[in-house]
Amino acid sequence: MSERTKERRQELHDALLAAAERTIADSGLAGLRARDLAASVGCATGAIYNVFPDLDSLILEVNARTLAGLEGHLGGHTASAKRATRIGAGDQLVELGVRYLEFATNNLLRWRTLFDHRMPPGQAVPTWYMERQQPLFGIVERTLQALQPSLSPKERSLLSRSLFSAVHGIVSLGLEEKLGALPLATLKSQLATLIRAFSAGIAQKRS
Amino acid sequence: MSERTKERRQELHDALLAAAERTIADSGLAGLRARDLAASVGCATGAIYNVFPDLDSLILEVNARTLAGLEGHLGGHTASAKRATRIGAGDQLVELGVRYLEFATNNLLRWRTLFDHRMPPGQAVPTWYMERQQPLFGIVERTLQALQPSLSPKERSLLSRSLFSAVHGIVSLGLEEKLGALPLATLKSQLATLIRAFSAGIAQKRS
Repeated sequence: MSERTKERRQELHDALLAAAERTIADSGLAGLRARDLAASVGCATGAIYNVFPDLDSLILEVNARTLAGLEGHLGGHTASAKRATRIGAGDQLVELGVRYLEFATNNLLRWRTLFDHRMPPGQAVPTWYMERQQPLFGIVERTLQALQPSLSPKERSLLSRSLFSAVHGIVSLGLEEKLGALPLATLKSQLATLIRAFSAGIAQKRS
Repeated sequence: MSERTKERRQELHDALLAAAERTIADSGLAGLRARDLAASVGCATGAIYNVFPDLDSLILEVNARTLAGLEGHLGGHTASAKRATRIGAGDQLVELGVRYLEFATNNLLRWRTLFDHRMPPGQAVPTWYMERQQPLFGIVERTLQALQPSLSPKERSLLSRSLFSAVHGIVSLGLEEKLGALPLATLKSQLATLIRAFSAGIAQKRS
């Protein structure tokens, strides 16, 4: 492949990715159609498949960008190690939970697409995408480590995922108003109550 | 309306409900189509709307039956007040969580439909359906009351919904394998770890 061809493919790849991200942000996953994407970047529908193996791969690349945005939003407050020791691990977990809620609220359709997208039957989520989730859980794992140093790396890894899932459940059923409408402030304070209770329980656990 | 007409409407209502329930159990919400339902009970498609205002109402009636089944599965173990005091409120919450996981595993598509169904834009979930959820939360509220008697009724009501949402998050991301595949036994023990930590934290809380 000539340098110029490679360059053009990269440009098409980036244009399609940006167009798909805009569509998902504006209308969610259900609004994404190959024909519309192609039209919006001015290529033939079939040309999409020169740069992405399928539409699922394109969606996963959009999701990877959403994960990076989420990581930035969560990671910001742990950047300072000084602050980390100052505010205490339990409060840090609460802050992570509240920041997750903020990110979901401010990026509702992109965030929802992380969970709405399912691979075609029989196809597993690719390894590169699973690996892209790890830094996010790393943030939670480091806080759990400070909270309860006796947890093994394996326990910490599992617990970070379970705690994330629990927080995600509260945020997602809350924002979908599945159990009735809750003001955002109530949702925040519920998150805080639950994470604080969990943290107190984990901190008092003896291995 | 004559008695005979009322009776026939009731029969059609029940037949459609049973057919919709079977379809959802076998193929999930995406498999539900008015035409197929009508064909399977031998009525015209339009006749559905003589007994249900719309397909959403029919789906909510199926969901109400799923909720009743879930309530039976969760409520069974709290039937005996003796047992309740014997096993302790924290262990009871763990058992409720594990039973929720069991119900979801054994009724995957019916359970998923509880959450996959969304009302058309601008339409709220009807009050009768929201009220149908209350007995389920009542089970959790009674256990929270035993765990921490200082919670006000309002706090208990909110916390039962948040704890349910947290458990739901773990169960649903776990069963969807969103964060990687976990054996069912690991999922159970993660639920137990998280609920136990939460219970310990809530029990030590002073009002």
